[in-house]
Amino acid sequence: MGSDGDGPVAELLSIGSELLAGETIDTNAAFLGSALARLGIPLRSIRALPDERALIAAAFADARARAPLVIATGGLGPTHDDLTREGLADALGEELTPDDALKAQLRERFAAFGTMPESNLRQALRAASAEALPNPIGSAPGWWVDRDGCVTVLMPGVPSEMRRMWDEQIAPRTGDRFALRPVHAGEVKTFGIGESALAELVGDLLEVPGEGLEAGIYAHDDGVHLRFWTRGDAAALDAPVARALALLGENVYGTDEADLATVALAALGRAGVTTVASWEANTGGTLLSVLAAAEPAPGAARFVGGVLDGGGATPAPVADAVIQLSLLPTDAHGRSRVRVSVSGAANLPMVEVRVHGSGIQRQRRAAFAALDQVRRGFS
Amino acid sequence: MGSDGDGPVAELLSIGSELLAGETIDTNAAFLGSALARLGIPLRSIRALPDERALIAAAFADARARAPLVIATGGLGPTHDDLTREGLADALGEELTPDDALKAQLRERFAAFGTMPESNLRQALRAASAEALPNPIGSAPGWWVDRDGCVTVLMPGVPSEMRRMWDEQIAPRTGDRFALRPVHAGEVKTFGIGESALAELVGDLLEVPGEGLEAGIYAHDDGVHLRFWTRGDAAALDAPVARALALLGENVYGTDEADLATVALAALGRAGVTTVASWEANTGGTLLSVLAAAEPAPGAARFVGGVLDGGGATPAPVADAVIQLSLLPTDAHGRSRVRVSVSGAANLPMVEVRVHGSGIQRQRRAAFAALDQVRRGFS
Repeated sequence: MGSDGDGPVAELLSIGSELLAGETIDTNAAFLGSALARLGIPLRSIRALPDERALIAAAFADARARAPLVIATGGLGPTHDDLTREGLADALGEELTPDDALKAQLRERFAAFGTMPESNLRQALRAASAEALPNPIGSAPGWWVDRDGCVTVLMPGVPSEMRRMWDEQIAPRTGDRFALRPVHAGEVKTFGIGESALAELVGDLLEVPGEGLEAGIYAHDDGVHLRFWTRGDAAALDAPVARALALLGENVYGTDEADLATVALAALGRAGVTTVASWEANTGGTLLSVLAAAEPAPGAARFVGGVLDGGGATPAPVADAVIQLSLLPTDAHGRSRVRVSVSGAANLPMVEVRVHGSGIQRQRRAAFAALDQVRRGFS
Repeated sequence: MGSDGDGPVAELLSIGSELLAGETIDTNAAFLGSALARLGIPLRSIRALPDERALIAAAFADARARAPLVIATGGLGPTHDDLTREGLADALGEELTPDDALKAQLRERFAAFGTMPESNLRQALRAASAEALPNPIGSAPGWWVDRDGCVTVLMPGVPSEMRRMWDEQIAPRTGDRFALRPVHAGEVKTFGIGESALAELVGDLLEVPGEGLEAGIYAHDDGVHLRFWTRGDAAALDAPVARALALLGENVYGTDEADLATVALAALGRAGVTTVASWEANTGGTLLSVLAAAEPAPGAARFVGGVLDGGGATPAPVADAVIQLSLLPTDAHGRSRVRVSVSGAANLPMVEVRVHGSGIQRQRRAAFAALDQVRRGFS
């Protein structure tokens, strides 16, 4: 979300050797980056580290010297590989001692499942300055350490446990502790134009979005998004968003949380389609995957399933309408086109559009290009 | 991949404000983590940084002081936000000057598309100690800087450009420069047992895998994987892998690159099934997505498509067999079960199995649990 003036900033340590070996993609970092940006204390650094005590301790010391909020995820499990507690205690110059209340909570938790492995007692260790935070859906408690002008937070690496602890405990405490003014953002989502074309269309709205506002352009597989944000009054976003909508016209498929699959299904619903199926070729099932992940909405067409063309002749599942998508072979210049149509209760004659990229990215963009054609065809 | 003894190590800087704001997930880091591990120069740190010159310069200086190989991705575009070149030049104490050969290459590249925006000339800037590396599919050249005992590499952030530059140029140069002995790995993949149960079954194979070998356990949505690796002779992996296969028995669904969907489709193929469809309820289309992403293989059943149960009665697409999956409601203790069956040319009576986690993770695990039941039922 660009620069952040004089406000406080945060650093994140993602701890776990599996992250460094490419075994696991760090989705926690993206979740926290986005959540911290909304909270108004943007991330300035994300660092992934292996499960090595000395490295973890040094990274905590470095980060604590730079930022008033340091968050770490991972390395809180029961095994000897889990060294985040030890690393932070080293950086703080504190000892780990068993906490009787945490021990009792662990034993109670395990009572439902049978006996607790002795190794789990490591999760009841605590540094003196750490306040333990309950984990209602896992065995690793979190830590909240407020010392020397820096808040240091430990959360479990399991995404569901981390997200719940963040939402219920860390986010509200952080907002209070730093007296944050949350960041309000407005996003205008387009498909079918590139970054530079979008920048030309909106002109100086990008450089001078308005008093106390900032703006940026972000390219994704589901199109180019124009975002405005402010730490001030959320109502200040209305004018630039309205102006962007007017300037970008039919390239816009929605704002804020809108997603292209939901928008396309809503457009089909307005065209009288109750159920829709998909048929796709050479796209690795991306259209089907994107449609399957769309949240059902009242009045929108409901995705009932789809088929892949593997050279066979399997018809699409029975539905009011079928979206058909083919990714055509790449030409001599490496360019690709997709062919899109809709048949059934709603009808869209076949169109061909360009898609960029290669590999899986091209397949994903093909799916979004199809949904964009559906959205445009029935808007 | 755990500790790495005395060999050289690498650090990665992922540069781009969008990474810090959670706008983009850093898939380049996972690719490079895995590629560097195989090459034998494991990553010790991944750090994501915003597009700010002073932060980038400080991070290069820190990383260059710690590691003999520092790789950076991103921030090589033509706009004023792209400051990776400047940051590295600052850390090296060098100036950026226009490189005539790079200018000529850029003009040639753009000749095919029309005129080159003047801003693209920033991509022809070079520090004196940097060797420019061609980018055959993009406008940003890479850099290779070998100075002061540290190799520093810049690559584009666009995944397809980065991967090609890595494969064709950086990986071979790095192997030569550090005289690396590549790491050989063998992986045994299980589903249906937890980490601690797996550790108990393999006993001391985990702690004492053999001369020059290391071992680790990794939990993923598609099961718990046991991995052995060595910088020595790849043949040394055969004995521990064979022993793990014997000890883990039918919990194993494959080794190395095997994936559960492909294994399940192969098992159905052996049972005489040519085409298979899916029917799923309450799983958000995860079974259909996982099956769609499976690579077709000779002799394996071919996935032709599937349907989601949204309360309707849409039949699955026509196929020899249908995999049916329902995620049952969570019980009072937060526990979930899935119900799995196969009907058609191959038949698997309904079974119920536990799934862990919550949200999307539980939905993904439900899909893998179904595929595991198929694999077990037809093995």
